Amino acid sequence: MVIHKWLDFPTEGNGQIVEITDEVRRLLEETGLQTGIINVFVPGATAALTTLEHEPGVCRDFKELFDFVAPAGRDYHHNRRGVDTNGHSHVRAGLLGAFVTMPFEKSELLLGRWQQIVFVDFDEVPRERTLVLTFIGE
Amino acid sequence: MVIHKWLDFPTEGNGQIVEITDEVRRLLEETGLQTGIINVFVPGATAALTTLEHEPGVCRDFKELFDFVAPAGRDYHHNRRGVDTNGHSHVRAGLLGAFVTMPFEKSELLLGRWQQIVFVDFDEVPRERTLVLTFIGE
Amino acid sequence: MVIHKWLDFPTEGNGQIVEITDEVRRLLEETGLQTGIINVFVPGATAALTTLEHEPGVCRDFKELFDFVAPAGRDYHHNRRGVDTNGHSHVRAGLLGAFVTMPFEKSELLLGRWQQIVFVDFDEVPRERTLVLTFIGE
Repeated sequence: MVIHKWLDFPTEGNGQIVEITDEVRRLLEETGLQTGIINVFVPGATAALTTLEHEPGVCRDFKELFDFVAPAGRDYHHNRRGVDTNGHSHVRAGLLGAFVTMPFEKSELLLGRWQQIVFVDFDEVPRERTLVLTFIGE
Repeated sequence: MVIHKWLDFPTEGNGQIVEITDEVRRLLEETGLQTGIINVFVPGATAALTTLEHEPGVCRDFKELFDFVAPAGRDYHHNRRGVDTNGHSHVRAGLLGAFVTMPFEKSELLLGRWQQIVFVDFDEVPRERTLVLTFIGE
Repeated sequence: MVIHKWLDFPTEGNGQIVEITDEVRRLLEETGLQTGIINVFVPGATAALTTLEHEPGVCRDFKELFDFVAPAGRDYHHNRRGVDTNGHSHVRAGLLGAFVTMPFEKSELLLGRWQQIVFVDFDEVPRERTLVLTFIGE
C-alpha cells in the first residue's frame, strides 16, 4: 500500500531547524500501516531534511557547519542575476538533500533514542512549507 | 508494483550538472503508475544525484561549493596509488550521495516549482552513464 | 512485500568506514525477493551511510574531507553543555545522512563495479551498531 500525507507549517528561514518527528508519528498512526518505510520530501529548492539529535547545541553547530561550507556572504552567481540573494540557500539545500527515507515496524519509527527527523529551512525569509510524506508498507 | 527503468546519456565530467527531470517524467508516464515513490540511482562511485533549481548561476555555485570542500588539487591518498587522479571525484560523490527518492501522485512528480532532478558527474573524463529508476506504487 | 532485516557489528568510531556490501547481499538472498529497492538505515545520531569505492586511499580521503568541513577541534555548542565531546560527530552524521536507498534486480544489487555500501561511524568511542535493512519488492 502507498499512502501520501501532507504536513504544513510556517518557517522562519535562515537555517531554522524544525523538528517534525512527532508529526510524522501522528501521520504514521493515521495510516494504520504496521511495517514499511516512510519518505519525507520537501517540494522546494531552498530547504532540506535530515536526522539529528535535536538539542539547541547541535542545532547551532549544524547551522555553523553550513555557514562554513557555503557562507551567505560569498559571491554567488545566482545572486548576480539581480533577482535573488539566496544563492547560499540553494547550494546548501542541494548538498543536504530534499528527503529522508526510514523504516517503521509495529507502527513505530525505527529511530535511535537521540535521533529526530528535522526540516532545515535555508531560505532567507519566513515561508509556509508543505512536506509530502509517503508511507509504503503493510 | 515495482518497475525498473534505465536512462542512458553521455556526460562531460568535471562537475557537469545534467538535468533529468523531463526524462524521469517520461519514464514515469511509461509505467502507467499513478501514486508512489521513485528512486533514481547511479551505479558508479564518481557521480551523484540531488535536486536543485537548474539555472546556470546555481549550477556554477554548486560546482564551486565542491571546489571548496574537496578541491581537485588537494593531495589525495587515492591518487598516490598512481592509478587514478580522481580522488576528489570519489569523495565528492560519496558526500552528495548516489540517489534521490521522491513522491509522485496522479502520475506527476511532486517537485517544487523551481526544483529539478539533477545528475552531477564528478569524474574527470567524458563517460556514458546509466541511471536506474525504480518506481514503486499503484 | 516489505521485509525488515537487522545487521549488527562492532565499530571503532572516529570516522571508521565499514564496508557492508556482502552482508547486504546475504540478507537480500535470505528474503527471496527478486526485484525492488533496499533501504539501509542507522538508528543513531552519530553515524551515517553512503556508497564509495572502498579502497584504503578513498577511505582516508573521505575521513579527511570531514576533518576539513567539521574538524573535531572546533568549538561546538554541543560540547559546551559539558556532557559530550562529540559535537563534530553529530554534525558530520547529519550532513552525510542516516540512510541509503538502492535498487536490486534478479536478486542482485545494482551497484557499479567499483561502488560499495559503507557505514561511517563518526562517534568517538567503540560501539555496537545495529542497522535496519528494509527490502521492498517482489
